[in-house]
Amino acid sequence: MKNAIVGQSGGPTPVINASLAGVFQAAKQHGIDIVYGMNHGVMGLLKDDLVDIGQFLDSDLKIELLRRTPSSFLGSCRYKLKPYTEDDTEYKIIFENLEKHEIGYFFYIGGNDSMDTIAKLASYGAYVHSPIRFIGVPKTIDNDLAITDHCPGYGSAAKYVATVMKEIGRDAACYGTKVVTVVEVMGRNAGWLTAASALARRDDFEGTDLIALPEIPFDLDRFVDKVAELQAKKPAVLVAVSEGIKVADGRYVCELGSSSHASDAFGHKALTGTASYLCSVLQERLGGRGRPIELSVLQRCAGHLTSRTDIEEAEMVGGAAVLAAIAGKTGKTVVLRRISDNPYQVTTDLATCDELANYEKKVPLDWINEDNTDMTQAFLDYATPLIQGELAPFYVNGLPYHLGSFKE
Amino acid sequence: MKNAIVGQSGGPTPVINASLAGVFQAAKQHGIDIVYGMNHGVMGLLKDDLVDIGQFLDSDLKIELLRRTPSSFLGSCRYKLKPYTEDDTEYKIIFENLEKHEIGYFFYIGGNDSMDTIAKLASYGAYVHSPIRFIGVPKTIDNDLAITDHCPGYGSAAKYVATVMKEIGRDAACYGTKVVTVVEVMGRNAGWLTAASALARRDDFEGTDLIALPEIPFDLDRFVDKVAELQAKKPAVLVAVSEGIKVADGRYVCELGSSSHASDAFGHKALTGTASYLCSVLQERLGGRGRPIELSVLQRCAGHLTSRTDIEEAEMVGGAAVLAAIAGKTGKTVVLRRISDNPYQVTTDLATCDELANYEKKVPLDWINEDNTDMTQAFLDYATPLIQGELAPFYVNGLPYHLGSFKE
Repeated sequence: MKNAIVGQSGGPTPVINASLAGVFQAAKQHGIDIVYGMNHGVMGLLKDDLVDIGQFLDSDLKIELLRRTPSSFLGSCRYKLKPYTEDDTEYKIIFENLEKHEIGYFFYIGGNDSMDTIAKLASYGAYVHSPIRFIGVPKTIDNDLAITDHCPGYGSAAKYVATVMKEIGRDAACYGTKVVTVVEVMGRNAGWLTAASALARRDDFEGTDLIALPEIPFDLDRFVDKVAELQAKKPAVLVAVSEGIKVADGRYVCELGSSSHASDAFGHKALTGTASYLCSVLQERLGGRGRPIELSVLQRCAGHLTSRTDIEEAEMVGGAAVLAAIAGKTGKTVVLRRISDNPYQVTTDLATCDELANYEKKVPLDWINEDNTDMTQAFLDYATPLIQGELAPFYVNGLPYHLGSFKE
Repeated sequence: MKNAIVGQSGGPTPVINASLAGVFQAAKQHGIDIVYGMNHGVMGLLKDDLVDIGQFLDSDLKIELLRRTPSSFLGSCRYKLKPYTEDDTEYKIIFENLEKHEIGYFFYIGGNDSMDTIAKLASYGAYVHSPIRFIGVPKTIDNDLAITDHCPGYGSAAKYVATVMKEIGRDAACYGTKVVTVVEVMGRNAGWLTAASALARRDDFEGTDLIALPEIPFDLDRFVDKVAELQAKKPAVLVAVSEGIKVADGRYVCELGSSSHASDAFGHKALTGTASYLCSVLQERLGGRGRPIELSVLQRCAGHLTSRTDIEEAEMVGGAAVLAAIAGKTGKTVVLRRISDNPYQVTTDLATCDELANYEKKVPLDWINEDNTDMTQAFLDYATPLIQGELAPFYVNGLPYHLGSFKE
């Protein structure tokens, strides 16, 4: 039987390694001898910088540790292949390296940019009549992948956001004084993660008072009025905004306050400072105190606070990818299909990578309330099952223990 | 037997409610009938805004829930009493209210500002020959209280800081690209919490590369050189700085970058933007990417990640305060005395509130390495026992459940 190779790409999540564990275990169980890992995704493959993952997962304990280790064990990258019709140089190198290591099955764990990579490699593979199977394994805290009901990584990030909103809210309210806390949550164009702040409302907590998603053009005057209205009723107002909210003319809110923002390899601008800008506007117009909080990378790397449902699904999609590849599928990605909300049941399916590549799934507008300030019950029904259950890290000497990077 | 009253003051911690539970349980066990709570500390007492805590802690489950609920259940305040020799108006109101409710025992859970309040009330009590006993219960994530070996609240905050440094470090390193992550940690004048970032170095993690405490004047040029030196060896450099670091001329580093910073009732300036300023300097001088991360209020309110040792000690000092009051002590605060590091053993003792009031205990300079960039083994021996053990929240429907504020 041919060997397998697996890579991780794009932003880390707390469960991307559970998918890696899923691929590894399913491959082994189905008779694949060597599972190679790419060091920093396709960038590593281009340099033939690979590792035999089995050497690092040589005990059940280590596999379990990998499941509970956040960020990308293999290292990640943001690397976009040009279409082979324009330039096939890199494709030739990649396929040479794959053949050299007798790879039959190629797995790539990533978001919509990574699905683009798989679609291109599968397409080139078909063009050169390669027998190698290319299968995508979805991951992104952003939950913006098409077709799949939701994306592994989102459940844990959503649980993190909802949990810390409860904690931040309690902290902010403790003095009984007037303060507007504006929490900035990741999400450029899709507000899934910010929407998760709505999950914080429970019988022990009043909840997030005001939520702004990038799906709705942001109206600064309305926002200030709404905060003033809320603060007339309660001193401590809790707001969640996506980093990517934009005003009607298309400018990011974070750009209104500052000047330059760098872009990455995919042309994405670095968005930061939205909460800080909004707090300065609130202080100027309403007086009182505004406290901006950026959840920053912790929302995508907090291995100490994960959803067990998410970890199990992340592992499941890894395993399903292996089955699909062995069954001869290629250019596909595993997706999750929800059977029912209550009881929550989900299964895997396959979609064509092309359908997911470079497309961002937005939050449905009818899941946002009429006022554009909160989520509806439909969203809560969708998201609540995804944050269920916990899987604590292995605490050693007081701190979570992780499976170290293989380069250490 | 007379009644008791308890208040919470100053910044919240994840374990300040464990001290409240400790006071309540010990009071009940020693025959005190009613335990009143002050709504927002002495501010509530001045307004006779009190609550019978027993009404809210009417089951063992609720007491256990209180132990696992972050932030101040009773509400907090930052309120400084004038010396009664200058103006005794407020003292008269306070003692009138205490007598009205037949209070014999007064407990105040707080930091050095709160110890000032207790010292003043005890002093006035002696002056008017009041039989009421005033005892302090220490809490602060800052760990800057004198005499006590360490302060309840610090262990959990230190565990939080060390844990997220490991997670942030893994996240930052995953691309293998050059990036300097500067994490800003709370601490105006004492670097205890920033020092806790040194705990992150374990056999599975390289650790925090560079640590800057307010105890050492900050040298910007040396800092940039040091980062450059580190980055020559590894692409992802991890830095922890106290929000309160100052340059040699006494200005806060965060003031170098921006203009105005508001002050609170105790004259403390709002410090924020240190990491952001340092990243902008690093980018300007060294190029590459700098990522500032402010841990913000989560380091003091993350009930989802606490030290069991800390929670148990927080409860213990609450209980010890009750015993001291019943034994007739007043104007004292409970302190922790360490018997040994290994095995870690600790007991309670009493100190005079005057000795702790308005004084900030700094990190000993010989616990900082010669280079002023890291902590020595002596610090690790001191801090490691404090982060041991976990006490998970009660997760309900996927989120930590809290004992709601009594006003809800």
